[in-house]
Amino acid sequence: MFAHNKRLQYTVRVSEPNPGLANLMLEQFGGPQGELAAACRYFTQALAEDDPGRKDMLFDIATEELSHLEVIGNIVVMLNKGAKGQLAEGADKEGDLYRKITGAGNDSHLTQVLYGGGAPLINSAGVPFTAAYIDTIGEPTADLRSNIAAESRAKIVYERLINLTEDPGVKEAFGFLMTREIAHQKSFEKAPYAIEPNLPSGKKAGHPRFDSVYFNMSQGDGEVRGSWNRGEDWNYVSDREKQAAVDGGDGSAGVVLPESDIALLKNMARRTMSDPNAEPVTGAELGARGSAPV
Amino acid sequence: MFAHNKRLQYTVRVSEPNPGLANLMLEQFGGPQGELAAACRYFTQALAEDDPGRKDMLFDIATEELSHLEVIGNIVVMLNKGAKGQLAEGADKEGDLYRKITGAGNDSHLTQVLYGGGAPLINSAGVPFTAAYIDTIGEPTADLRSNIAAESRAKIVYERLINLTEDPGVKEAFGFLMTREIAHQKSFEKAPYAIEPNLPSGKKAGHPRFDSVYFNMSQGDGEVRGSWNRGEDWNYVSDREKQAAVDGGDGSAGVVLPESDIALLKNMARRTMSDPNAEPVTGAELGARGSAPV
Amino acid sequence: MFAHNKRLQYTVRVSEPNPGLANLMLEQFGGPQGELAAACRYFTQALAEDDPGRKDMLFDIATEELSHLEVIGNIVVMLNKGAKGQLAEGADKEGDLYRKITGAGNDSHLTQVLYGGGAPLINSAGVPFTAAYIDTIGEPTADLRSNIAAESRAKIVYERLINLTEDPGVKEAFGFLMTREIAHQKSFEKAPYAIEPNLPSGKKAGHPRFDSVYFNMSQGDGEVRGSWNRGEDWNYVSDREKQAAVDGGDGSAGVVLPESDIALLKNMARRTMSDPNAEPVTGAELGARGSAPV
Amino acid sequence: MFAHNKRLQYTVRVSEPNPGLANLMLEQFGGPQGELAAACRYFTQALAEDDPGRKDMLFDIATEELSHLEVIGNIVVMLNKGAKGQLAEGADKEGDLYRKITGAGNDSHLTQVLYGGGAPLINSAGVPFTAAYIDTIGEPTADLRSNIAAESRAKIVYERLINLTEDPGVKEAFGFLMTREIAHQKSFEKAPYAIEPNLPSGKKAGHPRFDSVYFNMSQGDGEVRGSWNRGEDWNYVSDREKQAAVDGGDGSAGVVLPESDIALLKNMARRTMSDPNAEPVTGAELGARGSAPV
Amino acid sequence: MFAHNKRLQYTVRVSEPNPGLANLMLEQFGGPQGELAAACRYFTQALAEDDPGRKDMLFDIATEELSHLEVIGNIVVMLNKGAKGQLAEGADKEGDLYRKITGAGNDSHLTQVLYGGGAPLINSAGVPFTAAYIDTIGEPTADLRSNIAAESRAKIVYERLINLTEDPGVKEAFGFLMTREIAHQKSFEKAPYAIEPNLPSGKKAGHPRFDSVYFNMSQGDGEVRGSWNRGEDWNYVSDREKQAAVDGGDGSAGVVLPESDIALLKNMARRTMSDPNAEPVTGAELGARGSAPV
Amino acid sequence: MFAHNKRLQYTVRVSEPNPGLANLMLEQFGGPQGELAAACRYFTQALAEDDPGRKDMLFDIATEELSHLEVIGNIVVMLNKGAKGQLAEGADKEGDLYRKITGAGNDSHLTQVLYGGGAPLINSAGVPFTAAYIDTIGEPTADLRSNIAAESRAKIVYERLINLTEDPGVKEAFGFLMTREIAHQKSFEKAPYAIEPNLPSGKKAGHPRFDSVYFNMSQGDGEVRGSWNRGEDWNYVSDREKQAAVDGGDGSAGVVLPESDIALLKNMARRTMSDPNAEPVTGAELGARGSAPV
Repeated sequence: MFAHNKRLQYTVRVSEPNPGLANLMLEQFGGPQGELAAACRYFTQALAEDDPGRKDMLFDIATEELSHLEVIGNIVVMLNKGAKGQLAEGADKEGDLYRKITGAGNDSHLTQVLYGGGAPLINSAGVPFTAAYIDTIGEPTADLRSNIAAESRAKIVYERLINLTEDPGVKEAFGFLMTREIAHQKSFEKAPYAIEPNLPSGKKAGHPRFDSVYFNMSQGDGEVRGSWNRGEDWNYVSDREKQAAVDGGDGSAGVVLPESDIALLKNMARRTMSDPNAEPVTGAELGARGSAPV
Repeated sequence: MFAHNKRLQYTVRVSEPNPGLANLMLEQFGGPQGELAAACRYFTQALAEDDPGRKDMLFDIATEELSHLEVIGNIVVMLNKGAKGQLAEGADKEGDLYRKITGAGNDSHLTQVLYGGGAPLINSAGVPFTAAYIDTIGEPTADLRSNIAAESRAKIVYERLINLTEDPGVKEAFGFLMTREIAHQKSFEKAPYAIEPNLPSGKKAGHPRFDSVYFNMSQGDGEVRGSWNRGEDWNYVSDREKQAAVDGGDGSAGVVLPESDIALLKNMARRTMSDPNAEPVTGAELGARGSAPV
Repeated sequence: MFAHNKRLQYTVRVSEPNPGLANLMLEQFGGPQGELAAACRYFTQALAEDDPGRKDMLFDIATEELSHLEVIGNIVVMLNKGAKGQLAEGADKEGDLYRKITGAGNDSHLTQVLYGGGAPLINSAGVPFTAAYIDTIGEPTADLRSNIAAESRAKIVYERLINLTEDPGVKEAFGFLMTREIAHQKSFEKAPYAIEPNLPSGKKAGHPRFDSVYFNMSQGDGEVRGSWNRGEDWNYVSDREKQAAVDGGDGSAGVVLPESDIALLKNMARRTMSDPNAEPVTGAELGARGSAPV
Repeated sequence: MFAHNKRLQYTVRVSEPNPGLANLMLEQFGGPQGELAAACRYFTQALAEDDPGRKDMLFDIATEELSHLEVIGNIVVMLNKGAKGQLAEGADKEGDLYRKITGAGNDSHLTQVLYGGGAPLINSAGVPFTAAYIDTIGEPTADLRSNIAAESRAKIVYERLINLTEDPGVKEAFGFLMTREIAHQKSFEKAPYAIEPNLPSGKKAGHPRFDSVYFNMSQGDGEVRGSWNRGEDWNYVSDREKQAAVDGGDGSAGVVLPESDIALLKNMARRTMSDPNAEPVTGAELGARGSAPV
Repeated sequence: MFAHNKRLQYTVRVSEPNPGLANLMLEQFGGPQGELAAACRYFTQALAEDDPGRKDMLFDIATEELSHLEVIGNIVVMLNKGAKGQLAEGADKEGDLYRKITGAGNDSHLTQVLYGGGAPLINSAGVPFTAAYIDTIGEPTADLRSNIAAESRAKIVYERLINLTEDPGVKEAFGFLMTREIAHQKSFEKAPYAIEPNLPSGKKAGHPRFDSVYFNMSQGDGEVRGSWNRGEDWNYVSDREKQAAVDGGDGSAGVVLPESDIALLKNMARRTMSDPNAEPVTGAELGARGSAPV
Repeated sequence: MFAHNKRLQYTVRVSEPNPGLANLMLEQFGGPQGELAAACRYFTQALAEDDPGRKDMLFDIATEELSHLEVIGNIVVMLNKGAKGQLAEGADKEGDLYRKITGAGNDSHLTQVLYGGGAPLINSAGVPFTAAYIDTIGEPTADLRSNIAAESRAKIVYERLINLTEDPGVKEAFGFLMTREIAHQKSFEKAPYAIEPNLPSGKKAGHPRFDSVYFNMSQGDGEVRGSWNRGEDWNYVSDREKQAAVDGGDGSAGVVLPESDIALLKNMARRTMSDPNAEPVTGAELGARGSAPV
């Protein structure tokens, strides 16, 4: 069960209204690397987790991410507060309001017109949050790796926002939030390494014939090899012929069909054949009549 | 530039048509952990990458994932081939066709009715592929961690599909594809560790005051501590009071507003106040008139 | 700030595994009328709300909805628990697993194959949760009406699920959740009626000329009038002529353009005119050659 | 059946081209509170409705909303008309065109580049219309409440657009459209109140034990009580202990599993345990080597 | 302006309830090739069209498609009518209802649980309608070609549904709707051919050096040439070297950067280099410890 | 199988960084008419195609579109290169960076903040690529018409971008890409015309009674007839009465229901009737108390 405490996890002190900056902040509210995505990722993992240690950790961190969502949301609301009153009361001269919310440095018109100066669950371009961002698949060595990556990405987006923000109170709160992503990443690294073995994920081993092959699929000037494809751990295959049909077959696709299907497919093929010997006049030729360069 | 070779990377031999199984396979064609998502993830990273070693590796693997997409697509098409002919030619007795594509073990009606028995870029529930699945953010230590996690997830989905498939040709091809995810994961692990340091991601360090704190946000029976929150690396905080307003402030949110905004906001507050002393009759009371338990 | 208590708000007792039923339950987890949608709706309103009474109420109910989300998620996870182990361990005979997860009464293949038997944030058809479901617009008399409607819809979906469920523990938990929607609806009705006036929403009044007109746009057998369009409050307009151009103008659309634009638009019109006097041969005629009924 | 009359329901007179304003208007064309959403909401309800009075009313209003969609679409097209000719004819100096469609006060580049200056079914941020906005669920007391709320929201968005618009012809047309939302809201209020009882929605009554409880989930400075949670109608519960496991159970979740599942789940637990006693070295530690504050 | 006539364009006579068939029909209600998509496509084109002949035609056909949407919607509602009453009244024994709506041949649970047996704007897999289906771009020779293709696709989906339906009343109505798509296709072919020239679309001619080249990008067994790449109209290029960098350059990508950017990019490159000479130990190696084939 | 060659199909020479222009270019990278959509459309058709000529052509063109995707992606990356370094290194004065990425003529904040200056698979408004753009349905005469239309649309979007671009290197590359769309359109026209007959698509003929009728659904000033509805091929129907119930029935919808369903539906009707004789007081009336024009 969740409980709510009216104090924020981190005090929010905004220096002045700035709806354009509020709009950028939405990236960490309803965007793919934002706090709702994080909370949903860990909460859904926690629910399905049977291992007591991981379950506890996932609920801890999910709950903290919800509390971060609240911090970001408050920053957004504070930055929008002036604009909210202006639009709701219709008190400004009209042209001014229009110029304000569509002016340079301020892509906040969606927040104002549709959401009334609140904190909507969208990213900074206005795309609604979607659970398609959440990559929980219900296997711990995979999900924990997803969490490590997610914390790493969220850290970077906070770093970029700090680079873009002049307001000292916002920078300070963002410094806190960014730091917590680092701390979470460290926790998430411990848990899969406390499973032995943890690579490959899951139960099935790979085929020894293919698990150390590196196919050099992109060729030309600019090839550089390193530990990711060089050394005795790797069988490096550059020969284009040896990259195809690596099973030793002919590289085709086939299926064994019942006779009745074969007959139907032959009918279909005959009915829909693009005759390679036809020389049809087409709509294109009709359409190009009289066409001249412009 | 891409070139296409008509031989597949792995020969596809399907034993018999099975549109219901084809539908499950779509998970790795147009689903979130599927091959198009993988190819797009690595291709977009490759384009923006400036480091020659990583750029080369990313194009190599992106190109291989495109080739895997083709293998999966061919499996889907072979499993659907009979159904395709039946529906296109309308040759079956009608009730039979209906029962076939909506029957037990066969959630393939969307593939048949909308996509004509082809290989659509949807997941196994019919949800169209979306780039919201792609978590490229343009920072190498984050993106490579995302790739590690993505390969781990894809490996698991292949493992599940192998557990669900009886067709030996399909199992064999899936064994190959699953193995390649393991090989890719190994490559992707090498590249970030060849950057020093690689943690935290990005350029900014965390605040020392918060980067080793673990907030015990979920409390009650079932708490288990481990290396993720125990030991001298961690400052473990269970006191609910110390989890709030960790900056030492009052945990509120504020913004400094110009006078004119304050006046407008006061007007708005007055106009829209929900009077706590009112005792209004509401639509609910009107609506419940005569309501009795059922 | 949020805190998590490991006890659920309502104890979950499931009688036996049933992944097909779990799939239906997802409607209230990640579906449009589900608990995440509810929690997000009220949480975003609470953040932006300035009225102390409403802000407090919205946080109370948002937090309870998060707690309901947890209850539903646990029901889903319990119903899926057996299937999760079977697929992860690959212990079943393969054909059996396939038949189980695609069989009659069980549309759970997405939950199993993609989500590993967890509780994903999708609806019962597999569509990912989207913030497009959340209709918060940042005006209290509108948002509270949206909340009243949302609680009413959620109540109905619970009622339908109760009608479809035989498991007594699930029915009991759903009875609780359904009842809470009724209680929330009652609270949400009080708050807007404690604003005076609350209709129309917002600050601007309607035009007296049009605010009591009822346009009878759909005509023919089956017209029934009632309090919604009959009586002295309504001006009922059936004459088709009087339904068009109600401003008294000519019903056309126009814009005053600069000369340069007019010249360009004339060029464009000339260049792209579909000549009504042409009698072109088209691709259709080419294509229909030899066409015969089948 | 629908018929179309070439006269608009309201004459459109636009003073001058303004693609930036056109872009804001799209909110009521293809946005969540826009006219297509409204028309689809009432049309789908009308189709499934069996009550003759409601069916007639819903078709009347759906048809009027389609006619409003046409009015808004014409306003958008008129505001874009100049830009459309300029881009189609390529007649402007190139830099000028680029500056025009990306300049301050003008977020119209999507409308111009992708949609050629037409009226696309997107919101003002470019998000395509989705039926996820439509909350019809097929129960009249719920759907009519949804309609009341939807009209209230649409009224507010029109009010905001009026506050942002200087063009007198656009303001006048918007005044008409805003007023019609008020009139529709009044009709939609009458229909559910003409059902007795109409609360709670649906057939099942709530549990008396829980239908008048108010859980005070959000605690701390700023709590305000009013008619929504105070008085003899409400049982107000602030004790955190009494908010959990309100059924009197232990607040846990359980399921009765067959023996075979239990064995599999034990295997899985053993295989995937994150050992709380392990002290693993992790990728994080490898990665942080040499890391220094920046 | 639109008007509604209570008579359908085509009388609907359904023989018996069949929610599973209703679900398939949704493909033409809210699916990508369905009637709402068609109506929206033509309506948005009509609004922006300046050519009087095309504008008139587009409104004619858009209005007819809305009337078709109503016919399909009525078929869906009739097929669902029994299920609607059963679920709303909860009158059936519960297990029976569950089995009915999730049973073989019946993927209708979403329609029942979420939409109450109505006609929702989704496709047959439950994916909500999206304006992403609508390809209007505001240029007549392109849009009319899109319409030709759309009618052709819709015709095929109706043909497939006819092949799957036994109910004679539904088949008859579908025969009508399918036929109308053919008639619309014929109209849409006439309009672009009445523009001269109409190929290429738009105003700019192609570069003569590249507009008749055919690049043979896919090579291997199975190459077949026909009128689409053979003959004197085509310059057929199979040499892989001549397919790359066809401008005669080196096939690289470059940009001229200011000095300050170059310095920053060098810093970034140094900071984030994956050292090709490093031989790092990675998380993968830590994780594989003890890993053995299963 | 695919192979990658490090040389681009067309050399990219960008004159100077311009993130705002890069953002517009995304339309052809991840937008509905862009190169990924094209590649996916033809690739999925190629996989399912059985006709050898068409299969070969579709793989040729799909592979070329992938190569175009790479060209566009490189243009985007070059235009963003300076901004990428500035944000990653945080080297600029903060206010400057903020003003740069949100300033006039530059709607690139999403690309910078979320995607780090890379080439994300979104359109120019930030909407993620979706397979809902891909209209492959698995029938050659329909799919080839879709391809003709898609090439025509892509050509137009390139033409618009050329009109908006001053950079000579970008214009030149776009001229190449635009020209290739023309060449592809010509190929796609040949293939369906090499099928005889190809109209109507599919196997079933239309009903002769309805396939040459033109319903004049939109009436009023501005009607213009042309070859699309005039002449002996067309039966033009303007009489509103003859447009309804064209089958000769009564234009109603009906279904034959079992007795048990009829009884349930009667109960439901009684329970939920909106009594046309009721004169209820509603929430609206409560709410409007004291309402006065503003």
